[in-house]
Amino acid sequence: MKLSRLGEFGLIERVRRATPKSRGVLLGIGDDAAWIVNETRSCLITSDILIEGIHFNLKWTSLFDLGYKTLAVNLSDIAAMGGVPAYLILSIGIPPKFDSADIDEFYRGIRSLAAKSGVALVGGDTSVAAGLFISACLIGHAPFRPVTRGGANQNDDIYVTGTLGDSALALNLLQKKIKQTARRPFKYLLSRHHQPTPRLTAGAVLARERLATAMIDVSDGLLQDLNHICKASGVGALLWQNKLPLSPAYRVLTGPAGVKHALSGGEDYELLFCAPKRHRSRIEKLPQQAGVAITRIGICVSRRRGIIVLDDSGKRHAIRSQGHDHFKSNNRGPR
Amino acid sequence: MKLSRLGEFGLIERVRRATPKSRGVLLGIGDDAAWIVNETRSCLITSDILIEGIHFNLKWTSLFDLGYKTLAVNLSDIAAMGGVPAYLILSIGIPPKFDSADIDEFYRGIRSLAAKSGVALVGGDTSVAAGLFISACLIGHAPFRPVTRGGANQNDDIYVTGTLGDSALALNLLQKKIKQTARRPFKYLLSRHHQPTPRLTAGAVLARERLATAMIDVSDGLLQDLNHICKASGVGALLWQNKLPLSPAYRVLTGPAGVKHALSGGEDYELLFCAPKRHRSRIEKLPQQAGVAITRIGICVSRRRGIIVLDDSGKRHAIRSQGHDHFKSNNRGPR
Repeated sequence: MKLSRLGEFGLIERVRRATPKSRGVLLGIGDDAAWIVNETRSCLITSDILIEGIHFNLKWTSLFDLGYKTLAVNLSDIAAMGGVPAYLILSIGIPPKFDSADIDEFYRGIRSLAAKSGVALVGGDTSVAAGLFISACLIGHAPFRPVTRGGANQNDDIYVTGTLGDSALALNLLQKKIKQTARRPFKYLLSRHHQPTPRLTAGAVLARERLATAMIDVSDGLLQDLNHICKASGVGALLWQNKLPLSPAYRVLTGPAGVKHALSGGEDYELLFCAPKRHRSRIEKLPQQAGVAITRIGICVSRRRGIIVLDDSGKRHAIRSQGHDHFKSNNRGPR
Repeated sequence: MKLSRLGEFGLIERVRRATPKSRGVLLGIGDDAAWIVNETRSCLITSDILIEGIHFNLKWTSLFDLGYKTLAVNLSDIAAMGGVPAYLILSIGIPPKFDSADIDEFYRGIRSLAAKSGVALVGGDTSVAAGLFISACLIGHAPFRPVTRGGANQNDDIYVTGTLGDSALALNLLQKKIKQTARRPFKYLLSRHHQPTPRLTAGAVLARERLATAMIDVSDGLLQDLNHICKASGVGALLWQNKLPLSPAYRVLTGPAGVKHALSGGEDYELLFCAPKRHRSRIEKLPQQAGVAITRIGICVSRRRGIIVLDDSGKRHAIRSQGHDHFKSNNRGPR
């Protein structure tokens, strides 16, 4: 059914009906505000906007995946604080050409990941718009002291979960229209691009056990996000290029780009964190608990050394901030 | 400074610096998520999007007013539940042509009303976009049981705060390009359109004293919002047209449109509520406490009678739902 026939209130009613009841939600979609009861008075709040033509391209992104990713990127922010996600507020601007079935697909993507991560959709707003955009706000509980970007100390180890560069390499291949959709490595990269896995368990364990001194999720690229930690903590960083965790699919398909996407690609949604050396043995045991590999990739150094990448031949590269900035000219075009 | 020079992180830093520290905010703008401590575990959450060309027109809307109104419309939703506003999350999509001074003006509008209403800006997201849009999410406390849309009973009185139709009439005159900006009544209507006053005290008192059985804020037009209460409560409503509260400015400028804008104009941001007859004397004393007039405009009747407006000559008009629906064809064009 065309949205122009369904109407704004018809759409809201449709979303409300498809939304399961959740503990803690006294009043969900459909009144002036949602009414919830938090588990703790201490809350985390994060928010992300996704805009057609800037953050996603509907040529290669299904609406299901778009819904999934919308929630995933917000969950990743809560994970990076060591929090527990709870309530989602989802606003959406929709071009009138869309059909209600398209929007159902989007919400199906949202619900799929919401069910897995214990998140309740409690409200939002809808409007017509020239291009599709989504604005999500996610509220989480903070049962443990949140891990900020600002607590890293000199000589702390630097770790990252999972593998880097998969998502950016997938996007790069999509943008170049390289036809290799049949190849299994490409399918793997695509799944990493379209349905990133927020590292909620890893984040929560690191916060609960007070292992991490600083943490961020890698959304704008490893170097850029590491730079955020360095600036907030007043440290520099030395990275070993040969320690960067790369997936087999990435190694097969990267070609002459090498580690470029892993260093500054973005949209990895892995956790980058720092921890004192004395916690090494405990962190080595974490992957089993957290269900994700954790790799030591560098060490915090003095602030005045900035960020240095040591390449395979032992050569040092001083790095100026790189990665994604929406207003600056390094815009990589629609993802 | 052009935003393309300032950059995304420069803009965020600029907003962060201009944001005052607030009680309850342990970590504000600048990390993966904000960290706050709520006064109560019971929270209200509302959210609104405002899109250039749909919800506002920059020809006649200053960026200061746009900021002010963004917060006002969200405050109004919290007021309609009887809550106390606390934390604002503000995401904004900005065309690259904008200057950082424009965005400063917008945030100045936000801060102006935030300071008056005890709201702290704690986070959000920014991105380039083809057209300006804003997505706000406001979190409030619920110290008293929130007043929903669904509690009205047959024979309850129907009340509204302030006056109706001012904002819609202002917009109508702006759209018709009628040059009367020098006239004081027009200036009054403009101020009602650009800087609506959220009825926070009235809403909180009605919730605290348990006077209202149902409440909503009038954003889509009196009849449409009354219809929301009627549907949620399972009642009908009889309105007396000659009781509709109209401002002197509205009476001077409405012309042949008469009460049309008051009945279905929208963007009044007044509170529409129902209350049992036995509370009449207490409600009559409220205006002094709440700082706003409160007018009895009708009575709840049986659901099967629907919504009826009794006009000045005693003629009954049965009303089908009217007012604003973003996806339907009654779109009145950019406000």
